[in-house]
Amino acid sequence: MTFHDKLLNAWNTSNSLLTVGLDPDPVRFPEHLQNSPDAILEFCLGIIDATAAYACAFKPQIAYFAAHRAENQLEAICTYLRTHYPHLPIILDAKRGDIGSTAEQYAQEAFDRYQADAVTVNPYMGTDSLAPYLARQDKGVIVLCRTSNPGGSDFQFMQTADGTPIYLHVASMAAERWNNHKQCALVVGATFPEEIARVRARVGDMPLLIPGIGAQGGDVNATVKAGATTDGTGMMINSSRAIIYASAGANWQQAAELAARQTRDAINAARALLN
Amino acid sequence: MTFHDKLLNAWNTSNSLLTVGLDPDPVRFPEHLQNSPDAILEFCLGIIDATAAYACAFKPQIAYFAAHRAENQLEAICTYLRTHYPHLPIILDAKRGDIGSTAEQYAQEAFDRYQADAVTVNPYMGTDSLAPYLARQDKGVIVLCRTSNPGGSDFQFMQTADGTPIYLHVASMAAERWNNHKQCALVVGATFPEEIARVRARVGDMPLLIPGIGAQGGDVNATVKAGATTDGTGMMINSSRAIIYASAGANWQQAAELAARQTRDAINAARALLN
Repeated sequence: MTFHDKLLNAWNTSNSLLTVGLDPDPVRFPEHLQNSPDAILEFCLGIIDATAAYACAFKPQIAYFAAHRAENQLEAICTYLRTHYPHLPIILDAKRGDIGSTAEQYAQEAFDRYQADAVTVNPYMGTDSLAPYLARQDKGVIVLCRTSNPGGSDFQFMQTADGTPIYLHVASMAAERWNNHKQCALVVGATFPEEIARVRARVGDMPLLIPGIGAQGGDVNATVKAGATTDGTGMMINSSRAIIYASAGANWQQAAELAARQTRDAINAARALLN
Repeated sequence: MTFHDKLLNAWNTSNSLLTVGLDPDPVRFPEHLQNSPDAILEFCLGIIDATAAYACAFKPQIAYFAAHRAENQLEAICTYLRTHYPHLPIILDAKRGDIGSTAEQYAQEAFDRYQADAVTVNPYMGTDSLAPYLARQDKGVIVLCRTSNPGGSDFQFMQTADGTPIYLHVASMAAERWNNHKQCALVVGATFPEEIARVRARVGDMPLLIPGIGAQGGDVNATVKAGATTDGTGMMINSSRAIIYASAGANWQQAAELAARQTRDAINAARALLN
């Protein structure tokens, strides 16, 4: 099944647009996990089991594994997800961007080593830097467009000579040149609902990965109104820290489950207002 | 010693502006190495020993290690470089770009795990995405500016409302806002000498990392003329494949040594024409 089909299926079967981001930072783990040699793996599996019922996808952030020499634990997490939750796509958040020959290596990392369903990529180096990912027609390629951090405005928001900001050029390029097999999606931050709407207007029903809910402060109702497709889906709304670090006490799994359920429900309540 | 000081020192003591890029692709290795479990490590150490006398820096490309589950071999290569060639800076070519909390993890990966002297980064997400690297005042932060691949023109070359292309905004931002401790450098491809000159005019004597010599076809004389500072340095001119795959036969190390020496000499001949 392609990433795109898997995602459509997960939106419906889970009745959820929530993506749970796995950003495992050992200093924030519950105390009993902190001395385990496989703490990152144990923590992530605990979060996955607690939140899978409320999620349409999981998004491990590779930097947190790379910093802690924990690539093998990331492999084990991906294997666990494929085995226990095969209906939920795995999005490897890696934001790769390099020339074609190097991008081919990164595509192997994401799709062969970790067997992710989709990977996030950076468009700054242009079309040929994305080609090796796009060549995997069953995989998802999620391109940074308008990011939710303060510096997202430094370049993405610059107006080009025709009055269009850079991030809308990225959106148009994704819709018109890169999406030949419906494998593209775009990252657009929840902190800018107006800009989500401008991207949505350019890209039809292309899925949007929307970070910035929760710890980063984005508004759920405004986000859903701006980003939903006509059938009320079209978005992977990501929350990482607000869910996985909901508690560092003995109740960490229950707290993560509650946070995931409440976030899914808040998104679904916003979807109910659409009609 | 800071990256900047180490680089200045290496330019002079090696009398070289050549950076040797380590892009180890096992299918291109000499036959006798192909069945070794540590083939990537053995290949890279062989290349390093053969070419160090002609280099001002080494630049391992992390994608080639990540695709082959070879992070431990990259660690060993960095340790070897620090031990045997402590005067040559290690540039981790990773082109990272993410929000601050994630960038902090990537900074740990580059500077604590691999103990690189510098890392390449992607500016698309703006200032706060670079802050964790810039906070390491002794480390180098080498920002993508104008890349040598065909798609480099897709966004980097777009003209903003004031008539300036995006890549020159990146150059100005690096010179004016990010370079507080002289730790910045910029990636500018050798395939565009005119644009190297435009970047040089904006950034004073900031070092430029210039890929595109060799396999990618950039012209050495035009590159040196466009990019040199008044003292005839200012550049890390990178060659990867043309040096490390100069031969796949039994003479692979001699061929790499010859290619490195010839490239260094061609660069130095171009420098001699400057005055």
